[in-house]
Amino acid sequence: MDKLAQQLSFILELDRLKAVQRQTRVKPDNGRQENSAEHSWHIALVAQVLQEYAEEPININRIIGMLLIHDIVEIDAGDMFAYAEQGSHKEQEQKELAAIDRIFGLLPEMQYHFYKNLWLEFEQAESADARFAKAMDRILPVMQNMADNGGTWARHGVTRSQALKRNEYLKVSAPKLWNYVVSQIDLCVANGWLKDE
Amino acid sequence: MDKLAQQLSFILELDRLKAVQRQTRVKPDNGRQENSAEHSWHIALVAQVLQEYAEEPININRIIGMLLIHDIVEIDAGDMFAYAEQGSHKEQEQKELAAIDRIFGLLPEMQYHFYKNLWLEFEQAESADARFAKAMDRILPVMQNMADNGGTWARHGVTRSQALKRNEYLKVSAPKLWNYVVSQIDLCVANGWLKDE
Repeated sequence: MDKLAQQLSFILELDRLKAVQRQTRVKPDNGRQENSAEHSWHIALVAQVLQEYAEEPININRIIGMLLIHDIVEIDAGDMFAYAEQGSHKEQEQKELAAIDRIFGLLPEMQYHFYKNLWLEFEQAESADARFAKAMDRILPVMQNMADNGGTWARHGVTRSQALKRNEYLKVSAPKLWNYVVSQIDLCVANGWLKDE
Repeated sequence: MDKLAQQLSFILELDRLKAVQRQTRVKPDNGRQENSAEHSWHIALVAQVLQEYAEEPININRIIGMLLIHDIVEIDAGDMFAYAEQGSHKEQEQKELAAIDRIFGLLPEMQYHFYKNLWLEFEQAESADARFAKAMDRILPVMQNMADNGGTWARHGVTRSQALKRNEYLKVSAPKLWNYVVSQIDLCVANGWLKDE
């Protein structure tokens, strides 16, 4: 198959991420569910705007690249709610690995490897870039929940310790933002939007 | 106002781009209208995947940056259909310049200038980066229209010469992709999806 044709088929396939729905609601659009494509756009900009808070040396362009592709596997695997029970996370991981091969596999060999490695780096969260990317993926829902009377936290009965744990990447990656998140979570508990245990 | 608070208010404001609708339809999501946030995500990846076709030296990271922000002004100015009459384009430009100041103005001074300049560079399309970014913004709807029986072209009675003119950035910026687009446009005319004049 012609190289350009492979690239174009990958690009068209991406349209499908616009149909993958997340738990977060888009308040300015009548509270409809957010999809993973627009979410990916949003956090890429979050990372760019907040890059100065990174505690470790980072490469913001690699981070933006990670954030743009981190959810593409959901085209096949679907979005898993962040606070779902542990067992389902394991199953989700298997689906996502298969999705990598099918979706990035639409691309020419070299690009397939490039995106697969970038996705795995993000998932493993062992590099400074991946940690900061993960932290950005976590902090945005905090802001969205705060602006929406507790949002998914309130709707799903999430606890303070769950919300803190979910945002732990920030502790090492961007301590100033971690302090902000902790203050927001405490405010949320005070408002009755997060359960205190 | 505290710097972080300014940045966070900009980030929350971005949520509103998810409510700005374009003419293009999202075929895999029951043909609903595409919004400008998910569109921005999509073309950022289009640029990354197709960067090898750039004829001029480009900086792909700057291009991705441009594409991520190029539509943000639509939060205030709305999306203007690409094939709208000329007079309305002038009026739109005024609205967009005001939007720049209000929306990027939410950010700290340095970031405001950074994004404003990047947006102006994109709009003016005088640099190789801006030309390639514009070309990517044009080629994606071609693919989406082809995959949707002519899509917005067919629905709005667009002509062959209008579609060619709209994609002219590709000629200089990525000749191989220009050849592809011309072949698709000809196919579209043959299918009766674009008017031949």
